[in-house]
Amino acid sequence: MKATIERATLLKALSHVQSVVERRNTIPILSNVLLEATADGALKLMATDLDLQFVETISAQVETPGATTVPAHTLFDIARKLQEGSQVQLTAAEGKMLVTAARSRFNLQTLPRDDFPVIAEGELPTKFELPAETLKQIVDKTRFAISTEETRYYLNGIFLHVSDDATPVLKAAATDGHRLARVTVPRPDGAEGMPDVIIPRKCVGELRKLLDEVDGSVEVSLSPTKIRFVLGTAILTSKLIDGTFPDYNRVIPTGNDKLLKIDPRSFEDGVDRVATIASEKTRAVKMSLDRDKITLSVTSPENGTAAEEVPGDYASTSFDIGFNARYLLDILGQIEGDTCEVHLADAAAPTLIRENDKAPALYVLMPMRV
Amino acid sequence: MKATIERATLLKALSHVQSVVERRNTIPILSNVLLEATADGALKLMATDLDLQFVETISAQVETPGATTVPAHTLFDIARKLQEGSQVQLTAAEGKMLVTAARSRFNLQTLPRDDFPVIAEGELPTKFELPAETLKQIVDKTRFAISTEETRYYLNGIFLHVSDDATPVLKAAATDGHRLARVTVPRPDGAEGMPDVIIPRKCVGELRKLLDEVDGSVEVSLSPTKIRFVLGTAILTSKLIDGTFPDYNRVIPTGNDKLLKIDPRSFEDGVDRVATIASEKTRAVKMSLDRDKITLSVTSPENGTAAEEVPGDYASTSFDIGFNARYLLDILGQIEGDTCEVHLADAAAPTLIRENDKAPALYVLMPMRV
Repeated sequence: MKATIERATLLKALSHVQSVVERRNTIPILSNVLLEATADGALKLMATDLDLQFVETISAQVETPGATTVPAHTLFDIARKLQEGSQVQLTAAEGKMLVTAARSRFNLQTLPRDDFPVIAEGELPTKFELPAETLKQIVDKTRFAISTEETRYYLNGIFLHVSDDATPVLKAAATDGHRLARVTVPRPDGAEGMPDVIIPRKCVGELRKLLDEVDGSVEVSLSPTKIRFVLGTAILTSKLIDGTFPDYNRVIPTGNDKLLKIDPRSFEDGVDRVATIASEKTRAVKMSLDRDKITLSVTSPENGTAAEEVPGDYASTSFDIGFNARYLLDILGQIEGDTCEVHLADAAAPTLIRENDKAPALYVLMPMRV
Repeated sequence: MKATIERATLLKALSHVQSVVERRNTIPILSNVLLEATADGALKLMATDLDLQFVETISAQVETPGATTVPAHTLFDIARKLQEGSQVQLTAAEGKMLVTAARSRFNLQTLPRDDFPVIAEGELPTKFELPAETLKQIVDKTRFAISTEETRYYLNGIFLHVSDDATPVLKAAATDGHRLARVTVPRPDGAEGMPDVIIPRKCVGELRKLLDEVDGSVEVSLSPTKIRFVLGTAILTSKLIDGTFPDYNRVIPTGNDKLLKIDPRSFEDGVDRVATIASEKTRAVKMSLDRDKITLSVTSPENGTAAEEVPGDYASTSFDIGFNARYLLDILGQIEGDTCEVHLADAAAPTLIRENDKAPALYVLMPMRV
């Protein structure tokens, strides 16, 4: 293999690769990136952790086609430090790969390309396109609610499914049992009849990073066990979580009769301020609802007390309710408009938060005893 | 105590305070900041870790003079989150301090001001002024060489002393036994006859942060056991390290007969690049010196090899010498001009590095076997 690539192009692709490759691996070849130079002037870079696979194809001047694998983080560090604007030559031969650029030469240990594991995609019968912006929204407005509890592995990702409501929709949901986030978007062409899937957290994270660099559309293909995202020259393929996502619709309250309308920014800032006092253990913030006035307060045995009044539209009976400040801030951070609706029932019931009834996103938050 | 302060002014002073206050303290009051409002319209903030003491005085509208102490990090976090442009009112009474600003109210636990430990400065007979820029230079060009080995406590700081060379000078030096950094500046008026002192690492760090915010001169006062820096409205007082700094002049080589003149930027970049391959354990980089050409190289059993040629003026006999890449980069990072001198003897002898013989800073680096 012998190929020459622009340093900036190589660096960008390697920055995607190194993010997929774990720092510590018990199987040595998983630390490596597969490089494959083809006669049509392309260099394909591939990385995997056995659950997630990333492939990016960049243009290169290929003198001798071929393939090899070298440590991904080392090659990334080298590319990062090479002189700006330089041309990088990669030459693989006899168990080594030579990297040269300007006056620098690196000779890296390789592992055979045939040992590099490739995820068999199999058939991916469902295929649809989503605007990158929509996919970003789906990820941003749900991922914070993904559970980190490994025993509840079926909650360790974003649940994606189609539903025949009044109009056909695609829904994404995540929950950790304390809060639920759901985004609803129009069902894209090709998504009809798709299987319900749970996209693992790591795939969500890598997808999100790549979305920052694409405009236009992302091609999504999936089967009941695999999902693939094509973003420009990059392809991300992931195994799906093999489990059953709980019927989350049952926890979305429909009869909450007390409505608070409030500016999400004042609400967020107020919660953030009073939470300064909260102890790391509980993080509980109390909301006292009175006619057109909300009082946020925190009492901590060690630190003291904090209180702040936030104006809001509220006309129901006065009562107090408590929330985990962190969870409340996660939700408010995703509400963009200048008003939000908080639908309450009582101090022990799940509370519904959304921008308004037209908004694609909806959040449910369990209260805490305060 | 009752006083009103601009949030921005309070925040800035508290950001200095929280840096001095340790996150974990076995003595509770050391987590607190002492606040003292005086009738002449000033609020004094004081923090200490028993070795280092920080005092800053800011202007305030004082209604009732008085003093109290509250948790420093909590008050800093509150000030950080309060609305920009707001006025902060502090009211202390009955074991509590009330903080109010806009619609927010915080009630913090206090500890009695009389329990707050104050470092007795005693007499500080030596007094001189140094331009902030000079003091910055002294710190930046020596602090990286301060030892972190606690058993060699007398190396855990910057050694400051005056010397009657051809012209009277003030010298600052730091070493960890592997490298030595020394800066020489003209002796300021008032420093004559000053005792040799070792300024502890933490004081150096806090001083450096404060220096970024002052122009003009810094007033330095010291005795054999204490040092005080006055920077605008801030006063930093520290105990000095009670030990004897070794006679470092003996390790500065004077007979190194091989001279390399090299561009510090190409040298630094080259070392940084080849060091990518170095294992975390050794970090050794080999320099092969030949006529007007230096070859930097690293060989790592795990990772492979790296080499880079760097042009330089060299006319002595060819030989190889090894250095710790990290240490070499620390030194080169402090050399500002477009050329630097490397004075070598042989592969086992201390090497002298400096911009030129007029430069205030001089570095000695011990070689490594490669």
